[in-house]
Amino acid sequence: MERAASTPAQPGPLSADLLQKMDAYWRAANYLSVGQIYLLDNPLLREPLTLAHIKPRLLGHWGSAPGLSFIYVHLNRVIKQHDLDVIYVTGPGHGAPALIANTYLEGTYSELYPDVPQNAEGLKRLFKQFSFPGGIPSHTAPETPGSINEGGELGYSLSHAYGAVFDNPELIAACVVGDGEAETGALAAAWHSNKFLNPARDGAVLPILHLNGYKIANPTVLARISREELEDLFIGYGYQPYFVEGDEPAPMHQQMAATLDRVIGEIRAIQHRARHGGPLERPRWPMIILRTPKGWTGPKEVDGKQTEGSWRSHQVPFAEMAEKPEHVRLLEAWLKSYRPEELFDEHGTLRPELAALAPAGERRMGANPHANGGILLRDLRLPDFRDYAVEVPAPGAVSAEATRQMGVFLRDVLTLNQEARNFRIMGPDETASNRLSAVFDVTDRAWMAERLPQDANLAPDGRVMEILSEHTCQGWLEGYLLTGRHGLFDCYEAFIHIVDSMFNQHAKWLEVSRHIPWRRPVASLNYLLTSHVWRQDHNGFSHQDPGFIDLAVNKQGIVQVYLPPDANSLLFVTDRCLRSRNLINIIVAGKQPEPQWLDMDAAIKHCTAGIGIWPWASSDQGGEPDVVMACAGDVPTLETLAAVDLMRQHLPEIKVRVVNVVDLMTLQPPEEHPHGLSNRDFDTLFTTDKPIIFAYHGYPWLIHRLTYRRTNHKNLHVRGFKEKGTTTTPFDMAVLNDIDRFHLVADVIDRVPKLGYHAAYVKQAIRDKLIEHREYITEYGQDLPEIRDWQWPH
Amino acid sequence: MERAASTPAQPGPLSADLLQKMDAYWRAANYLSVGQIYLLDNPLLREPLTLAHIKPRLLGHWGSAPGLSFIYVHLNRVIKQHDLDVIYVTGPGHGAPALIANTYLEGTYSELYPDVPQNAEGLKRLFKQFSFPGGIPSHTAPETPGSINEGGELGYSLSHAYGAVFDNPELIAACVVGDGEAETGALAAAWHSNKFLNPARDGAVLPILHLNGYKIANPTVLARISREELEDLFIGYGYQPYFVEGDEPAPMHQQMAATLDRVIGEIRAIQHRARHGGPLERPRWPMIILRTPKGWTGPKEVDGKQTEGSWRSHQVPFAEMAEKPEHVRLLEAWLKSYRPEELFDEHGTLRPELAALAPAGERRMGANPHANGGILLRDLRLPDFRDYAVEVPAPGAVSAEATRQMGVFLRDVLTLNQEARNFRIMGPDETASNRLSAVFDVTDRAWMAERLPQDANLAPDGRVMEILSEHTCQGWLEGYLLTGRHGLFDCYEAFIHIVDSMFNQHAKWLEVSRHIPWRRPVASLNYLLTSHVWRQDHNGFSHQDPGFIDLAVNKQGIVQVYLPPDANSLLFVTDRCLRSRNLINIIVAGKQPEPQWLDMDAAIKHCTAGIGIWPWASSDQGGEPDVVMACAGDVPTLETLAAVDLMRQHLPEIKVRVVNVVDLMTLQPPEEHPHGLSNRDFDTLFTTDKPIIFAYHGYPWLIHRLTYRRTNHKNLHVRGFKEKGTTTTPFDMAVLNDIDRFHLVADVIDRVPKLGYHAAYVKQAIRDKLIEHREYITEYGQDLPEIRDWQWPH
Repeated sequence: MERAASTPAQPGPLSADLLQKMDAYWRAANYLSVGQIYLLDNPLLREPLTLAHIKPRLLGHWGSAPGLSFIYVHLNRVIKQHDLDVIYVTGPGHGAPALIANTYLEGTYSELYPDVPQNAEGLKRLFKQFSFPGGIPSHTAPETPGSINEGGELGYSLSHAYGAVFDNPELIAACVVGDGEAETGALAAAWHSNKFLNPARDGAVLPILHLNGYKIANPTVLARISREELEDLFIGYGYQPYFVEGDEPAPMHQQMAATLDRVIGEIRAIQHRARHGGPLERPRWPMIILRTPKGWTGPKEVDGKQTEGSWRSHQVPFAEMAEKPEHVRLLEAWLKSYRPEELFDEHGTLRPELAALAPAGERRMGANPHANGGILLRDLRLPDFRDYAVEVPAPGAVSAEATRQMGVFLRDVLTLNQEARNFRIMGPDETASNRLSAVFDVTDRAWMAERLPQDANLAPDGRVMEILSEHTCQGWLEGYLLTGRHGLFDCYEAFIHIVDSMFNQHAKWLEVSRHIPWRRPVASLNYLLTSHVWRQDHNGFSHQDPGFIDLAVNKQGIVQVYLPPDANSLLFVTDRCLRSRNLINIIVAGKQPEPQWLDMDAAIKHCTAGIGIWPWASSDQGGEPDVVMACAGDVPTLETLAAVDLMRQHLPEIKVRVVNVVDLMTLQPPEEHPHGLSNRDFDTLFTTDKPIIFAYHGYPWLIHRLTYRRTNHKNLHVRGFKEKGTTTTPFDMAVLNDIDRFHLVADVIDRVPKLGYHAAYVKQAIRDKLIEHREYITEYGQDLPEIRDWQWPH
Repeated sequence: MERAASTPAQPGPLSADLLQKMDAYWRAANYLSVGQIYLLDNPLLREPLTLAHIKPRLLGHWGSAPGLSFIYVHLNRVIKQHDLDVIYVTGPGHGAPALIANTYLEGTYSELYPDVPQNAEGLKRLFKQFSFPGGIPSHTAPETPGSINEGGELGYSLSHAYGAVFDNPELIAACVVGDGEAETGALAAAWHSNKFLNPARDGAVLPILHLNGYKIANPTVLARISREELEDLFIGYGYQPYFVEGDEPAPMHQQMAATLDRVIGEIRAIQHRARHGGPLERPRWPMIILRTPKGWTGPKEVDGKQTEGSWRSHQVPFAEMAEKPEHVRLLEAWLKSYRPEELFDEHGTLRPELAALAPAGERRMGANPHANGGILLRDLRLPDFRDYAVEVPAPGAVSAEATRQMGVFLRDVLTLNQEARNFRIMGPDETASNRLSAVFDVTDRAWMAERLPQDANLAPDGRVMEILSEHTCQGWLEGYLLTGRHGLFDCYEAFIHIVDSMFNQHAKWLEVSRHIPWRRPVASLNYLLTSHVWRQDHNGFSHQDPGFIDLAVNKQGIVQVYLPPDANSLLFVTDRCLRSRNLINIIVAGKQPEPQWLDMDAAIKHCTAGIGIWPWASSDQGGEPDVVMACAGDVPTLETLAAVDLMRQHLPEIKVRVVNVVDLMTLQPPEEHPHGLSNRDFDTLFTTDKPIIFAYHGYPWLIHRLTYRRTNHKNLHVRGFKEKGTTTTPFDMAVLNDIDRFHLVADVIDRVPKLGYHAAYVKQAIRDKLIEHREYITEYGQDLPEIRDWQWPH
């Protein structure tokens, strides 16, 4: 398995000396990768390897590590040569040993983790900690210096890379896409990101498709189509692919160096043209297709079976160390094939002539500040949200579209940060539909594909990013945030489930990052979920799903959920979210005209608390009520208030308290969430023994899940979406799910004790009214005029 | 390389007479599409159009309807001419008016919905019901005859189409991919499905990329790249694209007819070669790229703004009918431009010479039985699962890998149904990793891309479908099931979230289908989730998420969740799931060696009930216990039993009842789920007042959400995954989440009243043991031998 380059100079840009050194550096990285997977001790093989030096549980992935290190070493050369600003995004994140090895060799690792110094003792720690209890994960993770991409779930590297370079004109994101990862939907969609990248304003992504050949147990699709198809595919995607293929180190080094020189030259030429008066058109960006054997330089065969160049190299190429003593010998020979004695000095430190190959300071990819974006993060300049207030002379006196107001606020956020270039809005073609159109007064949609004269609001320098791929929107935004900028993702509520898994992974990234001292806080990921379940009556059942919140609350410490009942509260919440750090904020707000309840002062007070009594809507005069009518969400609030109005007219003896919830997390116990109300405060609001009728925006059981430990939980009765309803009227959606004003009044009658006979008449009148409603909408397709025209009696 | 065929515009294969008739048929379909969106009455325009004839709320999508109808009419011709078996899968499902119009014109609609006959009265009903309360959704839906693809959330048409034709050699799925939909991840990944389609065994997919040009508010990416890139892209994806482009109906009809003749000819030639001794290699399948204006044949301009050929045609091209009387005139002129008087006779019935253009009977795309797969569904032949039992002489006496046993059962399912060709297994490259490898004794992985000599278990006729795209796996399986076959999707538990949204949509499809009498039940969608949270200790945090169940239970009536504690119970559950209909079954089971608790008879009894007391593990002698130790999931069961063992030794005075839950839905009240236990049965198991320590596989609050109405909920204390843990030992994962045996015993001590002093000593011993555990794993990377070697004292 001797593979190290000892051959004389190959034709290519590298001198014999440089080639020899780069190969040695690569061997060092490979040595460290194998060491991390296998070794507990004896890190420099200064004693004969024995079982005692080997980890008892062998856990890790070797397969893509040598390829990742090969690229790393070559990027180091061009970074140094051209003083480039490069981050390294690696889709095949299970190749983490390579990233750890390289950041260790360049010195970053020891600077961030001083307990892992660049000597024999540090090497031993580096090896032991990998995929070991109390140590670090086997995948690229927040713990990995230089990474903005979790290596667990595949598919997001390319959209992360694009997100990173937006508005970073000098940055190059070298993005290794594994050929396994390339089969995923998120990745397949992300190639088209080049239609949204402006070479004048943005940096560059250099995709490196790594044809490693195999997944866990299968070949990969892209490794098994013809070279012509592969080329066509990427030309079709708008790239110019350059192939680097082989397995002999020396010629591969020359090929890779020549190719990198070429693609870096092309990138610079593209950028130069775009930035110095050339036509601003979409270029054909270069990319590299690197085909190397899986587990390159690893054992060719184990127990008579092909290993290098096979899926058998995917994880640990061989184990059973105790059972098969020859495996210990095989491991020793494999490690020695990298000739560690040539690479490390007597202290176990990388020899200086090799260490000199790495860039210095922040040019090291492990130390590049873009990959620890909190360092670069600047606060947004925010206008005073109070200036965008809707005038609300009395509760219910005016109507407004909440998200339209928010759009005006966002328009000015865009303007104020135009120069800082650190705010973008992402959405799957829905920004206008979601009524944020005011933003188009000051910016456009980013668009580098063909434009036609009739196009509106499309431009290369637009700051609204719209592609009909929630995955790409989410990936772009994550990349943008993790490199120290700000943003918002607006989406139809039902379809945000498309990125459930990306949400999970980002939440986990944030959760882990919080405990890593050198990871600086980043701006929160803000979702505006609109076109929500209660106003999808025209689209129907397939567009109705408020369950993203149910998923999100599993990530307790990271998530905030806001259900502002009107425009002014939405403005407050938006401002708060844009100021926050290291969170995921979910705002659910309607886009349709709805009555406005709170003037700005009231909204500030109410939303600051996150939950509170609305005295003007209550009839308990500050005393003990007969029933608590709680509501969360704009439509539930509307129906609750309409129910209160009905009760004032027909059941005036019932003392009602109205509690509105903006910040859903206040319902949780304080030990579960920092926003959780104390039990005393909760009991003060909800009483300890009175019925609570809770009208909630989403699935009703979520409220039970959040409150089951509260004193008065036994009297809690929740109405919400229960999967009923399809194409019908807005009010009928509420009726079908029993959350409308009439059902709410009936719920009160059923639960408040000692009501007079006339309550039974009211219930009968409710039944009649619901029948009338059904007949009317079935005939006319609209709600009863009295429903459409209902107003709070302000 | 052959590039796109240039089809002569004129003349073409259609005679003047046929062209004229086909155009008339198309006009009829367009007329009906506009009518559905706009008209409440006056369906044949026999009176001057007035506001009263127009719907008060205008809801629907016109943009892609004319293109969809154009394709439908042309497919009708080739179906008739060649007696083809074709289903029509339409990604742009918001073009539902076109599908409804065409199935109405061909007669299917009135057969399935006799209240909508083929006359003036029927037309009126057809128009009114569309996107109207009590009517039908505005998107393609289960209600739409001939559809297997919900048109709400975009991205799944192509994988559905491939799923439909697997094992259906005579079937062609004509699949219209919208250029908006084409931007999604799921769709972008699905193009590679052609590497898994065997032309000898499977049918054909004819993708028709519809370059309609615009989404809601934006142009589409694929409509704005050069024709060369577009061609390259699809050649790269492995297709031979044929362009049909224009907006003049007559030449477009000729172009489309010529192109369809050509591609049908190619499909038949490919299939003939593969089925008659030609080499079985991946062909270049033909596809069509159809470029027509959005809202084709609609108003060119409205209020001075371009409408045809613009995003303004996406939904309702113009509204404000009351405010702008000229819009009523515009609508009338538009409708009359289709010359309805030439199309419908005096009864309002399509004229016979036009009706004759449609195929007959089951050849009509709306009546094709493949699109109502329950009609074709045959029961699987299932071996007796009892024959695969693990011998369990006593609880805990043997160890086995549950999924490996399941693999042997599945192997024989494959064998027994080899001839029927109606069972497949889908998974993202994890079938072997998930220990189902026995299936490879009798089948292979389907693979039509290049094969190399060293490949194992890859073959064109494999019945295991592995691509590293959960979206594609899910889409294939949905398409396969909806066309009347059976299957299983095995996946890592954490990554199934990637298809959350597809799960939601499929659940909604099933829910709606249940209420449509003509939709026959289909086989359930079965998930095996393995490599689960408690055994991802080597991969770490990014691979740990048991939250799919939390999402799934929102679809209450459709979902079953099974957590079999061992191999025999997994066998029972697998058998049950494979027999079930119209459900989504989620099985969570480990793949690691674990102790086996139940012999087959006990497993059958226990799993039939879904929940029950394990008397052999309990010490309450059938009387009232001091504590109920409940468990659901294999690892929680193991830890619970280990805790019981500890208590027998150290706290023998505590009477323990062990309750194991296999069928999670038994916990719900019976009014919420058909499997829900009655309150009496629940109270019998869980007592009404004793502490319950519940060790649950997933997030603990789900158990509260399911049981909050139960009598003894106040004494319920749940342990589960709370987002702790990363790369560590298996047992330490349990410790970090407080679900390990020691924490469970401590929970009991904290909750059972009146324990003696020695309980405090036991708690101290527990604390010491956990410290010892931490020290040991940090040093050796393995669990304490006493943990690894623990066995139930059988």
